[in-house]
Amino acid sequence: MKVAVIRRAHFNAAHRLHNPAWTDERNREVFGLCNNPNWHGHNYELEVKVTGEIDPDTGMVVDLGWLADLIRREVEQRFDHKNLNLDTEEFKQLIPSAENICVVIWRILRAQLPEKYDLHVRLYETPRNFVEYPV
Amino acid sequence: MKVAVIRRAHFNAAHRLHNPAWTDERNREVFGLCNNPNWHGHNYELEVKVTGEIDPDTGMVVDLGWLADLIRREVEQRFDHKNLNLDTEEFKQLIPSAENICVVIWRILRAQLPEKYDLHVRLYETPRNFVEYPV
Amino acid sequence: MKVAVIRRAHFNAAHRLHNPAWTDERNREVFGLCNNPNWHGHNYELEVKVTGEIDPDTGMVVDLGWLADLIRREVEQRFDHKNLNLDTEEFKQLIPSAENICVVIWRILRAQLPEKYDLHVRLYETPRNFVEYPV
Amino acid sequence: MKVAVIRRAHFNAAHRLHNPAWTDERNREVFGLCNNPNWHGHNYELEVKVTGEIDPDTGMVVDLGWLADLIRREVEQRFDHKNLNLDTEEFKQLIPSAENICVVIWRILRAQLPEKYDLHVRLYETPRNFVEYPV
Amino acid sequence: MKVAVIRRAHFNAAHRLHNPAWTDERNREVFGLCNNPNWHGHNYELEVKVTGEIDPDTGMVVDLGWLADLIRREVEQRFDHKNLNLDTEEFKQLIPSAENICVVIWRILRAQLPEKYDLHVRLYETPRNFVEYPV
Amino acid sequence: MKVAVIRRAHFNAAHRLHNPAWTDERNREVFGLCNNPNWHGHNYELEVKVTGEIDPDTGMVVDLGWLADLIRREVEQRFDHKNLNLDTEEFKQLIPSAENICVVIWRILRAQLPEKYDLHVRLYETPRNFVEYPV
Repeated sequence: MKVAVIRRAHFNAAHRLHNPAWTDERNREVFGLCNNPNWHGHNYELEVKVTGEIDPDTGMVVDLGWLADLIRREVEQRFDHKNLNLDTEEFKQLIPSAENICVVIWRILRAQLPEKYDLHVRLYETPRNFVEYPV
Repeated sequence: MKVAVIRRAHFNAAHRLHNPAWTDERNREVFGLCNNPNWHGHNYELEVKVTGEIDPDTGMVVDLGWLADLIRREVEQRFDHKNLNLDTEEFKQLIPSAENICVVIWRILRAQLPEKYDLHVRLYETPRNFVEYPV
Repeated sequence: MKVAVIRRAHFNAAHRLHNPAWTDERNREVFGLCNNPNWHGHNYELEVKVTGEIDPDTGMVVDLGWLADLIRREVEQRFDHKNLNLDTEEFKQLIPSAENICVVIWRILRAQLPEKYDLHVRLYETPRNFVEYPV
Repeated sequence: MKVAVIRRAHFNAAHRLHNPAWTDERNREVFGLCNNPNWHGHNYELEVKVTGEIDPDTGMVVDLGWLADLIRREVEQRFDHKNLNLDTEEFKQLIPSAENICVVIWRILRAQLPEKYDLHVRLYETPRNFVEYPV
Repeated sequence: MKVAVIRRAHFNAAHRLHNPAWTDERNREVFGLCNNPNWHGHNYELEVKVTGEIDPDTGMVVDLGWLADLIRREVEQRFDHKNLNLDTEEFKQLIPSAENICVVIWRILRAQLPEKYDLHVRLYETPRNFVEYPV
Repeated sequence: MKVAVIRRAHFNAAHRLHNPAWTDERNREVFGLCNNPNWHGHNYELEVKVTGEIDPDTGMVVDLGWLADLIRREVEQRFDHKNLNLDTEEFKQLIPSAENICVVIWRILRAQLPEKYDLHVRLYETPRNFVEYPV
């Protein structure tokens, strides 16, 4: 009897979409306003979905306090109030698009989550733009 | 041409997470504040997803008035303004965690829904914690 | 590494649920208030989900500006502030139920979207009633 | 000790902004897409705010069940699934702009509400456009 | 140059509306489902509005970290996951209606807030029912 | 018959809270994470409230298309995808706190709005923190 448990979390950060292998002109053409060299930022809303069997002793799939702490420690403390390009190891070489941020968060959490659970991540960059991984 | 139709509904209730086979100490350790012997409560938001073929005569998968009535009768009248542990048969022996409530609602509705439809239930315990069954 | 990108959009429109092959009485019985011969209307919220591989040069699955323009041109300009039954080709013969509108939008966008992408559409008729295609 | 109590309600309707004293050209110029002769529509969200003293015997300013019934009978049954221009007495001669609908709802409810209460109405035409009366 | 700063917070709790001076029948008649002797509960959403002058050295009206801590300590720790009638001093003699809870929270916070600030509280009992004090 | 019309808009931006007259230590102490020298950012949601008399010829207080254009030109184009501290004249000398941004937006719009209208601005820095001016 597999159930999915979803926990929402939040962080806000500055970023810039920029490919250093390209000319400035090409970067502006592809990334538009998101290429602003002085950065811009977002309130990122995160949904972490953990899927597994209900433990009959607790009625729970996963301890929600443990999951909330994991997200706080591994995602919020890492990215909240940061410049993703400058302040984080993960995006020193990787463009911090919503797509890439979502995959990076999935990998960080996957490494900490017992194997018996499935993991899906949804990331809202704005209320109108969001991404999911895996599909 | 299968389409999924989702209907939201609402009920609020009191509950307590408690395993009578455990000591009080163990219960407090596992369930934390949710083990309060005097209960606490939530506004539960429910999404019932019914999947099936579009009827070409009506353009509809399922009569939404019928579905809303079914949810009102089988879920809202059963659980709304109730103490889940004390006032309902379903949770006399079963811990009323979000996971278990979600599965119980699925079973109640599944028994009333024609076989040709697939059924999925999402239950929000708070805007930041929610569950889905089946996955 | 497939990621899904979701873009929300909006249009509002009038419509009427009515099957011309039926008597007025049968129409009222099946469609209830939605059969009002003088129309009623909704704010439709649309979620367009495009799934594909992340392009390593851009970090993006799809150019979001291109996608937003596509939705604006093909969906919003076609349906926004329109009477779906009277003002659009798509619903001259087809009942403009949420289910049918969702499938029609999927077909319109599918025809414009490169084959390498998967496409899913979610359409909110009200905050409490919504549909998804495909499932 | 005055407290304000707010109750949300919902109706959806078709309408058209049109001034019969003007030419068609002038109407299109002023009202744009909202002048569509075939109508368009909205999900209207309504907030009714009733302000008064707390009754020490009940802890309540107003019986919320009574207020919800009043709104259902006087506003929802009158306007829900209607064409505001064609199906209602109130907008036969009056342009059904959000501003006018808001004032009309205030007058309807004001006439039914005991004098000791203050009344304010907020009406959402879309999630991004809304009005309040009185100010 | 006075600006209002609003901070949202959250707690969930069980409660019962009951006037011990009345018969059971009268209680059921007035409070309906909210009179359930076995309690029910809600997710309460709280908005605390603090109004004052902008400090030119900080650009801020009030230190938001300090305000969030104040709300956590004085409101969330007091009421979260509690039975308002049984577990709190404030509602031992006072009916825990949304109106009374709102006034009680205002008094608790008012006592801790420097006099130079104005204070307003909005409390959501459900997304469709909420109250404000003072008006 | 005065009615208030509210229009929501959106921009996202990077910023830093920093008082150059203070030591780095004092800045970190007062502004915490918001003092990050590499910036962070937000999705700002804006509500512009314009209050005035209903024009009996149009049923409207203000032309909503004109108001939306004004906000787009004067606020969104100025601040969207910008670094408020580096890219805007307004915050070269002024700390871009939510309070100050709100007052600045009010002044910009006030200068463009006919005198007969009252103007109020609400600015969401996050869904849980927001400000209003004037009060």
